[in-house]
Amino acid sequence: MKTVQEARQIVGEHASPLGGILQPVATAAGYVLSAPVYSPVSVPGFPQSSMDGYALRVQDRGLVLPVQDELPAGSTRQVQLIAQQAIRVFTGGPVPEGADAIVQKEWVVITNEGIRIQEPERVVAGTHIRMPGADIQAGDMALAEGTLLQAYMVSYLSGLGLTHVEVYSRPKVSLVITGNELVQPGHPLQYGQVYESNSYGLTAALYQAGIEQVQQWRAEDTLAATEQAIAAALKQTDVLLLTGGVSVGEYDYVVQACLNQGVELLFHGVKQRPGKPLFFGKKGRQLVFGLPGNPASVLSCYQQYVLPALHQITGRKTPTPQMAKLAHAYEKKGSLTVFLKGHYDAGVVTVLPAQASFQLSAFAMANCWIELDESVDCFAALQLVPVHLF
Amino acid sequence: MKTVQEARQIVGEHASPLGGILQPVATAAGYVLSAPVYSPVSVPGFPQSSMDGYALRVQDRGLVLPVQDELPAGSTRQVQLIAQQAIRVFTGGPVPEGADAIVQKEWVVITNEGIRIQEPERVVAGTHIRMPGADIQAGDMALAEGTLLQAYMVSYLSGLGLTHVEVYSRPKVSLVITGNELVQPGHPLQYGQVYESNSYGLTAALYQAGIEQVQQWRAEDTLAATEQAIAAALKQTDVLLLTGGVSVGEYDYVVQACLNQGVELLFHGVKQRPGKPLFFGKKGRQLVFGLPGNPASVLSCYQQYVLPALHQITGRKTPTPQMAKLAHAYEKKGSLTVFLKGHYDAGVVTVLPAQASFQLSAFAMANCWIELDESVDCFAALQLVPVHLF
Repeated sequence: MKTVQEARQIVGEHASPLGGILQPVATAAGYVLSAPVYSPVSVPGFPQSSMDGYALRVQDRGLVLPVQDELPAGSTRQVQLIAQQAIRVFTGGPVPEGADAIVQKEWVVITNEGIRIQEPERVVAGTHIRMPGADIQAGDMALAEGTLLQAYMVSYLSGLGLTHVEVYSRPKVSLVITGNELVQPGHPLQYGQVYESNSYGLTAALYQAGIEQVQQWRAEDTLAATEQAIAAALKQTDVLLLTGGVSVGEYDYVVQACLNQGVELLFHGVKQRPGKPLFFGKKGRQLVFGLPGNPASVLSCYQQYVLPALHQITGRKTPTPQMAKLAHAYEKKGSLTVFLKGHYDAGVVTVLPAQASFQLSAFAMANCWIELDESVDCFAALQLVPVHLF
Repeated sequence: MKTVQEARQIVGEHASPLGGILQPVATAAGYVLSAPVYSPVSVPGFPQSSMDGYALRVQDRGLVLPVQDELPAGSTRQVQLIAQQAIRVFTGGPVPEGADAIVQKEWVVITNEGIRIQEPERVVAGTHIRMPGADIQAGDMALAEGTLLQAYMVSYLSGLGLTHVEVYSRPKVSLVITGNELVQPGHPLQYGQVYESNSYGLTAALYQAGIEQVQQWRAEDTLAATEQAIAAALKQTDVLLLTGGVSVGEYDYVVQACLNQGVELLFHGVKQRPGKPLFFGKKGRQLVFGLPGNPASVLSCYQQYVLPALHQITGRKTPTPQMAKLAHAYEKKGSLTVFLKGHYDAGVVTVLPAQASFQLSAFAMANCWIELDESVDCFAALQLVPVHLF
């Protein structure tokens, strides 16, 4: 039986990035860069106006300047400004060669002879001109390896003209659901049956973690059926999650079936509640988690062990748990680490009712797991405890 | 010209939920319930064992009890316990009628005559029995209207046997991208051209907000082309986002084109930087945002105005901005509200370099917008300011 810390460490030692793939920038948000990105261009790539106005030479600012030309945004002509003249320019458009300032149109009076600048001394060299490379120079690193891409970075990368970036691949995940008592939602229950919810909750949680390649199998509570499902799932997966059948009981075949299928046992049993019978193993680079059958145990073990593994595989950092003050004293029994459904708000966390592992109604209110260390039994009000936000 | 507060309020007054749709529970995470959910069943639906062990009558706990039957999880037989006998039961399986306690198998010695309980006085009425409805009773409210569904709630709802829930519909969003200077990433740039990034960044941001129905149009910088794109987009959208062409310049056709297409102007111009020329209007129930062309302005206006509107439409609450301490003093010019790219960490926020609205390189580091109120020019180090986390 491992402690929670030992179990976390073992999972951490066996989860490693799958490697880089080329991903379209358009759909790269949520991925982590597996290589730095260098800018192929300077931004802007040309002297660019940041105003609608007139380009001129500062030395001519006191003169009436005939308007020689007009360069709207998108104009690709490279125009030379004639001395003592001006060129009409626009926000985002090019600044003609020879000009060293832009005067905004609101500061100008238009006469028959040309434009005249009011308060010409306010026009100085560089006014309203974005110099080439003012945001980034061609060849500069735009984003570092390990960056978790966000939507606004998609703007940034697209603005550099990039269509693809190298990111850590996401794992394929398989679910094997065991339990003869389980019935699919939408069908009537007979006496003794319960609705199967783990595949739905896990698939939704995996989707939130960016993992959309999720396949699933059902297995009857026999060794042969369990082995068969595991064998099929292992053919096409990076991470295998099993639910139920992981205790040491007459109808619990998951551990034996995994071993028979060549899975190396890394641990079985963690000093925690819920989720004590958790099993973890691997076959080659494939990770195998045997999660208990109770939905709350499944969700707790998912967040404590599976999600950090998925983060490591996809190059993400697992956030360190937040510390929160317990709203009230709490006493727990036994030398296990306990994960409680909690409601966190503004630094304070409340233990919710309905903590048994079969009870899900607390999820109507819960937004975190509260971790209570195995070595402590009595927790005082306002004591700081780690919380794992959903 | 509106203040930021006025602009927010006007947007808020015109954004309202689209109405409820039936969504499969499996893909309902991220949606908001438009009606309360009542449980169609009690959970558990039958007296359920929480242990592998033996069901018995407490009054028989001191006797040697022959094992009458076995009820594995998934057994649908309703069995009557015979007095002075025991029935083998399993975690998650039914408890036979007449039994009022479960003794776990580890506490039992098996003899030829039956089982004998060690320390029988520890077995009391109700031990290891989950009573019907102990988690939720049929007819009880499982989740309230307005609940933002999370992955773990998908487990909870599936466990109630539900396949569909009523949620607020998500809007269809259309983008109209204007700007003759724009070139698609992946193509070479000519002098005076820049890469189009707004459609990519907005689509990624919309996707993160759960909005996958995004269509886009390009419009040349002419009134006719802009009107045409707007007309096409308005035919099939709930929210229309335009980028560029929203200032009052010779090539800025967005506002006029919107008016010509029957869009009612609600405001044009907000006392803010970036994003001063922001336009907001509506046509019937359709909302129209004219965003400036600079990518940073687009992203800032998206977060300040568009995202809250999308939240209201989809029944979500917009999180109140967090307050953070400025890492250093900061001075701003002009009586505008300024949104700065910032990096927030543990209660402290740092203003990043490269704040001009055409500069995106700060997004390599930024994780929030810092809001500096229009009425204040000089901000002291450690002064509290609102931050809008990405």
